[in-house]
Amino acid sequence: MSREPVNLVEVGPRDGLQNESRPLDVERRVELIHRLVDAGLTTVEAGSFVSPKWVPQMADTDQVLDRLDLDAGIHYPVLVPNQKGLDAALSAGAKDIAIFGAASESFSKKNINCSIEESLDRFRPVAEQALGNGMRVRGYVSCLVACPYEGRIEPNQVVPVVRAMFEMGCYEVSLGDTIGRGTPKQIHAVLDALLSEFKPEQLALHCHDTYGMAIANIVAGLEKGIRTFDASVGGAGGCPYAPGASGNVATEDVVYLLESEGFETGVDVEALVETGKWLFGELDKMPPSKVNQAYQS
Amino acid sequence: MSREPVNLVEVGPRDGLQNESRPLDVERRVELIHRLVDAGLTTVEAGSFVSPKWVPQMADTDQVLDRLDLDAGIHYPVLVPNQKGLDAALSAGAKDIAIFGAASESFSKKNINCSIEESLDRFRPVAEQALGNGMRVRGYVSCLVACPYEGRIEPNQVVPVVRAMFEMGCYEVSLGDTIGRGTPKQIHAVLDALLSEFKPEQLALHCHDTYGMAIANIVAGLEKGIRTFDASVGGAGGCPYAPGASGNVATEDVVYLLESEGFETGVDVEALVETGKWLFGELDKMPPSKVNQAYQS
Repeated sequence: MSREPVNLVEVGPRDGLQNESRPLDVERRVELIHRLVDAGLTTVEAGSFVSPKWVPQMADTDQVLDRLDLDAGIHYPVLVPNQKGLDAALSAGAKDIAIFGAASESFSKKNINCSIEESLDRFRPVAEQALGNGMRVRGYVSCLVACPYEGRIEPNQVVPVVRAMFEMGCYEVSLGDTIGRGTPKQIHAVLDALLSEFKPEQLALHCHDTYGMAIANIVAGLEKGIRTFDASVGGAGGCPYAPGASGNVATEDVVYLLESEGFETGVDVEALVETGKWLFGELDKMPPSKVNQAYQS
Repeated sequence: MSREPVNLVEVGPRDGLQNESRPLDVERRVELIHRLVDAGLTTVEAGSFVSPKWVPQMADTDQVLDRLDLDAGIHYPVLVPNQKGLDAALSAGAKDIAIFGAASESFSKKNINCSIEESLDRFRPVAEQALGNGMRVRGYVSCLVACPYEGRIEPNQVVPVVRAMFEMGCYEVSLGDTIGRGTPKQIHAVLDALLSEFKPEQLALHCHDTYGMAIANIVAGLEKGIRTFDASVGGAGGCPYAPGASGNVATEDVVYLLESEGFETGVDVEALVETGKWLFGELDKMPPSKVNQAYQS
């Protein structure tokens, strides 16, 4: 019996590493990406064109891209915060970019110093130019169910931001439970609101495991027909709003869940565990991933 | 709007501590139990009447019981492996005992050196005498979906062991995913089999978080009507089959889930986090609980 495929978007080399205090050099970031592709991942976020003053962990993303084979059928999206970032991404030959918006006004103001509407206005020409250059554009929407400053976020705050991302031409919007406070009923509620307007195959879930709820929330997404999930190898990327706590859900844990539930991920969980072990050796800490810890024991 | 209550069985002072390498003395075990009751827990497993040669962490359980008020409306079950254990529990004035069986022949043989049937035969007179003395008897069935030696366990292997526990007079059977390998579909399948014969209020789920699946499995149990869950403060109790990995699901994480999902636990999550923090200070390690780590950050 053939198993239903699920898509994984590996965000470790970008969303993971940008929240780890120890920066890795280009050499090791490229090795990480190669290991992830060898484990079977076909979409690997490769970096971010932001100022290295703000995010030193993502410095030299152009050199990372230069070391990758961008024509081998693997998607290597890069995060682009503005026109300058897009220019750099174009120069580096990137074919996939990611842009972002928040469902919380306070988060938008504190994170990027402008309102939600202003941030969308700024991204519109960036997305247009990217599409004109043949790039794929992915959207991130943060604060899916909760904001570190405002608390609970309601579905009607999320829907217009997601709609704006699609109107800009995003092929997919990744819905981020940025601080990991969501639980399944909240995920169901916001997905119900979104799925009255969009198709499940247009949406991805980006769960953080800060409160240990990520796997249950991914199951909640599966129940609503979501088949694309973001994850970070080993659980790389702490939570900037709760220092010391977990951030991104670990790719190993997601693969373990999905394969056990009868889905096809195309990913070799043991190769992934090895990669997480190697990465956290370089970061000189224990991986938050429970599957990683269980396999290593 | 009144919220639906869920019952928590705190197993930290027994199932948790017996799997921690550092033994705590009677003083600190009593303090732990008092803190847990103060946080709102009404059923707290207080210890085990096993040989201290085998489980030194549970030595002097009689002294622990002696320090507790057994008439204050709190249940303090103790684990009893045989007639000798029951005699000690009776002498100590215990009112609640727990007995156990496995759904896996290999696990039963390796764990207690007899077949499943032999172990049930040995417990029958123990349960009978306990009931005759006015005790409540709780049953544990381990290897609910997987065995560390045999791998996958099927629902039809679980049902007869649970049935035998009820035939002995257990008021409740706690279903243990002993190695934490289960995922929601497997939990649904075994609960479907059990619920064709037993009522949801007769069953409890005892999830281990070794592979990070415990919270999702508890949600699966909630979906099938289960309203009693075992958990261990801080996530105390490693996994003896995967040293270094997580064992029991953390009570904080379960309370966080349940309260967020609209259930009433009666437990103060912040007091629980403080208790977990204190306990893991005594154990000189980090609590595996994600909620504990997030609240401490």
